[in-house]
Amino acid sequence: MSDLKNPLFLQACRREPVNRTPVWMMRQAGRYLPQYRAIRAKNDFLTMCKTPELASEVSIQPVDILGVDACIIFSDILVVPEAMGLKLVVEEGKGGPRFTNPIRSRTDIEKLAIPDPARELKFVLDAIRMTRKALDGRVPLIGFSGSPWTLAAYMIEGGGSRTFRTIKEMLYVNPRDVHFLLEKLAEATGAYLKAIIEAGAQAVQIFDSWGGILPPHEFREFSLRSIRHVLSLLPTRSVPVIVFCRECGHSLEDIAESGADVVGIDWATDLGVARRRVGSKAALQGNLDPAVLYAPPKTIREHVVRILEQFGPHPGHIFNLGHGIHPDTPVDNAKAFIDAVKEESSRFHASARSS
Amino acid sequence: MSDLKNPLFLQACRREPVNRTPVWMMRQAGRYLPQYRAIRAKNDFLTMCKTPELASEVSIQPVDILGVDACIIFSDILVVPEAMGLKLVVEEGKGGPRFTNPIRSRTDIEKLAIPDPARELKFVLDAIRMTRKALDGRVPLIGFSGSPWTLAAYMIEGGGSRTFRTIKEMLYVNPRDVHFLLEKLAEATGAYLKAIIEAGAQAVQIFDSWGGILPPHEFREFSLRSIRHVLSLLPTRSVPVIVFCRECGHSLEDIAESGADVVGIDWATDLGVARRRVGSKAALQGNLDPAVLYAPPKTIREHVVRILEQFGPHPGHIFNLGHGIHPDTPVDNAKAFIDAVKEESSRFHASARSS
Repeated sequence: MSDLKNPLFLQACRREPVNRTPVWMMRQAGRYLPQYRAIRAKNDFLTMCKTPELASEVSIQPVDILGVDACIIFSDILVVPEAMGLKLVVEEGKGGPRFTNPIRSRTDIEKLAIPDPARELKFVLDAIRMTRKALDGRVPLIGFSGSPWTLAAYMIEGGGSRTFRTIKEMLYVNPRDVHFLLEKLAEATGAYLKAIIEAGAQAVQIFDSWGGILPPHEFREFSLRSIRHVLSLLPTRSVPVIVFCRECGHSLEDIAESGADVVGIDWATDLGVARRRVGSKAALQGNLDPAVLYAPPKTIREHVVRILEQFGPHPGHIFNLGHGIHPDTPVDNAKAFIDAVKEESSRFHASARSS
Repeated sequence: MSDLKNPLFLQACRREPVNRTPVWMMRQAGRYLPQYRAIRAKNDFLTMCKTPELASEVSIQPVDILGVDACIIFSDILVVPEAMGLKLVVEEGKGGPRFTNPIRSRTDIEKLAIPDPARELKFVLDAIRMTRKALDGRVPLIGFSGSPWTLAAYMIEGGGSRTFRTIKEMLYVNPRDVHFLLEKLAEATGAYLKAIIEAGAQAVQIFDSWGGILPPHEFREFSLRSIRHVLSLLPTRSVPVIVFCRECGHSLEDIAESGADVVGIDWATDLGVARRRVGSKAALQGNLDPAVLYAPPKTIREHVVRILEQFGPHPGHIFNLGHGIHPDTPVDNAKAFIDAVKEESSRFHASARSS
């Protein structure tokens, strides 16, 4: 951390005392920013992911414009399954990215390759190196991946889904195939995150966007187990690992015991309840409902203060949204959120109060 | 209950001892049944809701075909907002029902009427009377409504939504208008459920399908408060009231204390954890993941047994799915589920063991 000018985020990840709560936003490099849309207008989404100069530029935008305390690399979790052999397409105005050749059989799973990140995912590593350099220690850089379960859900469904009928059927009818796929994905994800850390990411976040489609027992058996598998492949005590399982409030204790340094909390869990349940096992990251950013700054500030009060005067809170920022959020309101956290949080920190 | 041949469901609602666990399924009168599809092929959805003979016929189908322990009247929660003055349309193959004139202002709310159920919603009351007669005491009949919050979400969004952007913006920017709408909806819903009970429903269920789009604090302030308002308008100790707030596992204790006799549990909460949290305050209804019904009967039975074990040897469990049955569920698997509950549950009941 020697050359880091703003170490607040990393200190909070390690539950060290800070003089105010650090803050960043999931999807902060995104469509709500006119500066992002200007670049996006000239480049398609995957080109942006795969062009380190562009990925780096949009990653740094929210640091410049909003003053967030951490930078997250612009990328997509689906570049890993693509590198494993699935064909990824993002068609304009046709919903999210999807795979044209989804996994439907054990043979499909057997055919998947474990990519060498230095080769097939070099564009991400280059973007990380370039962004670290451009940031010049202003704030730490976060790398990320999807969880094996979330990647499996996309790979089997072929894209997002309302019911996740296909993967759920496979899960209940043929759980061994799902486990086989998850093991392969854990290996690929572990190697990928290791390479990301070596390239310069100062923290990594695992997004389990679809852990919440599983009942608690199945979440632990399928999603959390494979996240632990990934964590076991990472160099110990290198950089903080954030695990964010969306809509999995039922299993916070288990997530905290998985080896994660930080547990991401979505807006469906009261942050005070989460802190009492997780105790000193992990730091917490969250959890303002991103829809609050539609409200005027005064209301945003009230909600920020309520969440700070819920968490209370303890170490180990990284303020964030409880979900990615909505693309139609007014930039001024996003700025009001960041400012409110910075201005309101210092009175919750003992080191600030006593100084 | 004097002329009721199968009182298991009502006994379990009241937490009385039973010799096996009663079971029914949310959306049991629905598209997975070929006999339902045969009637639906000749009538559109709203015609079925509004023709008591048809509504009654499809309500009773799962009693005849699957042997469920309760009959729920076939209807739709949106008939109430329609009776209040919104224009409801269900277009074939265009997603769910929607309103062509959604609520967007306080003036829109002021214009809403409080319907007289005996007049504007007579078709539901007639369907209930007809179904009670046709059931002839075989199993009890359940009536239902949406929660005020869930109805408000549909009325403001105009239909289902992925992000519920419009109602969330109104909630955070202009909470007073939302409260004004919720109060009006609570009055309309209270009068509706009262009429349903007087027409012969032996239990009622309030569906809060969209309570889960709110953070816990807002859920309690907006959704649960208005559900309590509805409950306060019902005749006391008349029939059991089931409150099912989907994806609201964070607030089970509060729901149980709302005055509900039965708390519906979705599949995202472990039923054993729910029982310990709710204690003796209410009976519980749930909670098999409906996707389990894609698996073979042997697997379905294993999941049924696990849920029975989670709940343990206590009174007050109504077995159900943790969400409505999927339209593409094989009927044989639905039957295997009902049979498994009937066959496996008796050993969990003391009165059965000691007899």
